[in-house]
Amino acid sequence: MSVITVAAGQSVCSPLPVLGRDVTVPLVTGGEVTYAALDYAASAPALQRVWDDVAAYAPYYGSVHRGAGYLSQLSTDLFENSRAAVAEFLDCREGDQVVFTRSTTDSLNLLATALPAGCQVFVFETEHHASLLPWQDARVTYLDAPRTPGQAVEALERALADRDPYGPALVCVTGASNVTGELWPVRELAAAAHAHGARIVLDAAQLAPHHPVSVRDLDVDWVAFSGHKLYAPFGSGVLAGRADWLRDAAPYLAGGGASRKVARRADGGVDVEWHTTAARHEAGSPNVIGAYAIASACKALTEAGFDGLVARERHLIGTVRAGLAEVPEVRVLSLFGDEAPRVGVISFVVRGWNSSHFAAALSAEYGIGVRDGLFCAHPLVRTLLGGDPQDAGECGAPDGGTTSLNAIRVSFGAGTPDEHVDRFVRAVKELVRDGARWNYRTEDGRCVPDRG
Amino acid sequence: MSVITVAAGQSVCSPLPVLGRDVTVPLVTGGEVTYAALDYAASAPALQRVWDDVAAYAPYYGSVHRGAGYLSQLSTDLFENSRAAVAEFLDCREGDQVVFTRSTTDSLNLLATALPAGCQVFVFETEHHASLLPWQDARVTYLDAPRTPGQAVEALERALADRDPYGPALVCVTGASNVTGELWPVRELAAAAHAHGARIVLDAAQLAPHHPVSVRDLDVDWVAFSGHKLYAPFGSGVLAGRADWLRDAAPYLAGGGASRKVARRADGGVDVEWHTTAARHEAGSPNVIGAYAIASACKALTEAGFDGLVARERHLIGTVRAGLAEVPEVRVLSLFGDEAPRVGVISFVVRGWNSSHFAAALSAEYGIGVRDGLFCAHPLVRTLLGGDPQDAGECGAPDGGTTSLNAIRVSFGAGTPDEHVDRFVRAVKELVRDGARWNYRTEDGRCVPDRG
Repeated sequence: MSVITVAAGQSVCSPLPVLGRDVTVPLVTGGEVTYAALDYAASAPALQRVWDDVAAYAPYYGSVHRGAGYLSQLSTDLFENSRAAVAEFLDCREGDQVVFTRSTTDSLNLLATALPAGCQVFVFETEHHASLLPWQDARVTYLDAPRTPGQAVEALERALADRDPYGPALVCVTGASNVTGELWPVRELAAAAHAHGARIVLDAAQLAPHHPVSVRDLDVDWVAFSGHKLYAPFGSGVLAGRADWLRDAAPYLAGGGASRKVARRADGGVDVEWHTTAARHEAGSPNVIGAYAIASACKALTEAGFDGLVARERHLIGTVRAGLAEVPEVRVLSLFGDEAPRVGVISFVVRGWNSSHFAAALSAEYGIGVRDGLFCAHPLVRTLLGGDPQDAGECGAPDGGTTSLNAIRVSFGAGTPDEHVDRFVRAVKELVRDGARWNYRTEDGRCVPDRG
Repeated sequence: MSVITVAAGQSVCSPLPVLGRDVTVPLVTGGEVTYAALDYAASAPALQRVWDDVAAYAPYYGSVHRGAGYLSQLSTDLFENSRAAVAEFLDCREGDQVVFTRSTTDSLNLLATALPAGCQVFVFETEHHASLLPWQDARVTYLDAPRTPGQAVEALERALADRDPYGPALVCVTGASNVTGELWPVRELAAAAHAHGARIVLDAAQLAPHHPVSVRDLDVDWVAFSGHKLYAPFGSGVLAGRADWLRDAAPYLAGGGASRKVARRADGGVDVEWHTTAARHEAGSPNVIGAYAIASACKALTEAGFDGLVARERHLIGTVRAGLAEVPEVRVLSLFGDEAPRVGVISFVVRGWNSSHFAAALSAEYGIGVRDGLFCAHPLVRTLLGGDPQDAGECGAPDGGTTSLNAIRVSFGAGTPDEHVDRFVRAVKELVRDGARWNYRTEDGRCVPDRG
């Protein structure tokens, strides 16, 4: 990877090539501009390397498992090797299982079905709905938003120690917030969980694309992440970790692939013998291309080197935060404060602006794609905004009265060039200073330029 | 589409271009040959058109739903338009929902979670495990294998009429068997179900790639199919049909996208308001590429025209069946007899041969990819083979004693050229007449050429 030197003297990588880097989009004010994809926290573009790997494999795609043909055996090997590549990427322990799912949401829902009887779940209200909601069949303790990483550990320890009855427990925690980008003290939370006889699952959806994740070093029991945030948007995700709960659980899906042997009983019923490997939870034909794409992304990020990727992202974060800090109307949402380590995910509100309107103007007038809303983390965003905000219905004109109903999120990663964040900072400053140059209205729930 | 005329004077289409049509594989006997993918019933190659559509879209991939950027809105439209294209392909009724899942297995597992309280399920033992097994939390009646389509309807009517208590019921039936390729009397079974106050779901995994499926004409309540058997192997499937049970059911996955509003309660718990549209069961970021690939395949098949596709497939089926009929050692597995209408899925055993060995020789010596085993339909294959066969462990040398432990399946579709089935018929004849030219052994559960 080539290395460039920035003004501060810090060495950072150049961005990794991604699909869509040359795509141009029309501006409502006339002309076209290359699209600045700054919604990586929702879905990142595919790495060019991932696409190339998928394209090279696609003609060799074949049915996996019991297919006797050459391409079937090649595809089966590719699928199982992808599992091994993910295990290596996550630095899994011997005996850990890597289950291919469809997404982080799916991974955590799978784990929720594998909780032992009587298991209590502990989760902070600050989680994405994917990690907040799957546990509703268990006894769940929702912990209030902490204001420091230390408070998080203390709150968890207290809750675990106080649990009654003192039985099996699971802690679910994010590695990096999908709203603030702030890193959570995963290693410390894992230690607290284990000290109190609990297990812990790490939601690494926002962490894995930005930082190395070592299951072994963090000492987490499971980790979940999504391909589509890891530059591999082909419908696959991962749940990796301890085999025991997964092996003891009912199969996540009932069907072929998960069943070893199925036979009618004398009484007319059906007996099923299920696999005890990862296949137990992967019924149906696996998404081979999705799994291979994830493995390709894991290798590409590892080869690029996280040191360089992290340094580059830190540089981009610095640009955005410094730029936003120069605009008094902007309030950046934060739980842990300015000094907290973070990934390239930054949410904010702009005084005097409806967030949907602001996001629409960034798109229509600057070709910048961000996200507005509550980011599938309603309790957290409400806590950060204060009061009792609602999801904004109408974008209308800038309206001080609805300013804080939702927020704007800018997010980026390994494929983001400096120009995108530079353009974003310039756009924020211009919009706040000069206002939008166009009128916007709500159409089908979207805030769009009013061309009428 | 170009049309060629075959000897019988029947007009059939040329095969649709698929990925991998020029891939060559090595033969154990020396040299290379183009791969004959004859395992379509497990996974079909991607249509070239599907691949081209995916490749054209991939640079424009963006986060869907609340993304404010141009590519996000384009991707959201593409995703929702894909839903509409599937509804049109299936000739859905107004008000039907199209839910994107990961596969047929997933679709039927979703429906299983949506059964109303006390619902009884009726399913023939002849089903693929994907349609046989998801209902185990309900009261399931397994119906014995019928020997005519008429017997199937009679058996179902009797079982439904006798049910006690007479409450909600669901019938799950395949459109075309994944073992015999034979068509089931779906319209008649639907009429029987409805006459007895039951609903019916059609497993169209093996039907939709080969025949037009009209939800309206067949009068089925739901239909499920997989992209990877419909020339769109990108990890998506479909459940389409009546909205009411789906709307009343708990969300299939808990997470973002499915939740409209999430808020802490005063007592510390969490209240969730779920969507009532298809999104209710699609939590997590949707597999946009997978959904678009399915929509592309639906359009490509419709534009090619099922009349021509069916005629061409009938021609290929005729070639294979006529060829196998000339080999006395071959027994084709059938439930409904020689005259039953069928798709291009044919299973058989060869007297004096272990099926795994036979399939391995077809691959290694002829470059032909078929499948051996029990095809995730253990009860059906056991019924068809007779006795109490087991999945063969060792392929070894041809062995009369283990002949009928499992079977060989050849399957094909819209991308299959005549040469593939011609080569298959020639290979079967040569192997039976001359024996394999190589030795084979079992390695990691696979039957492979012995290169030692």
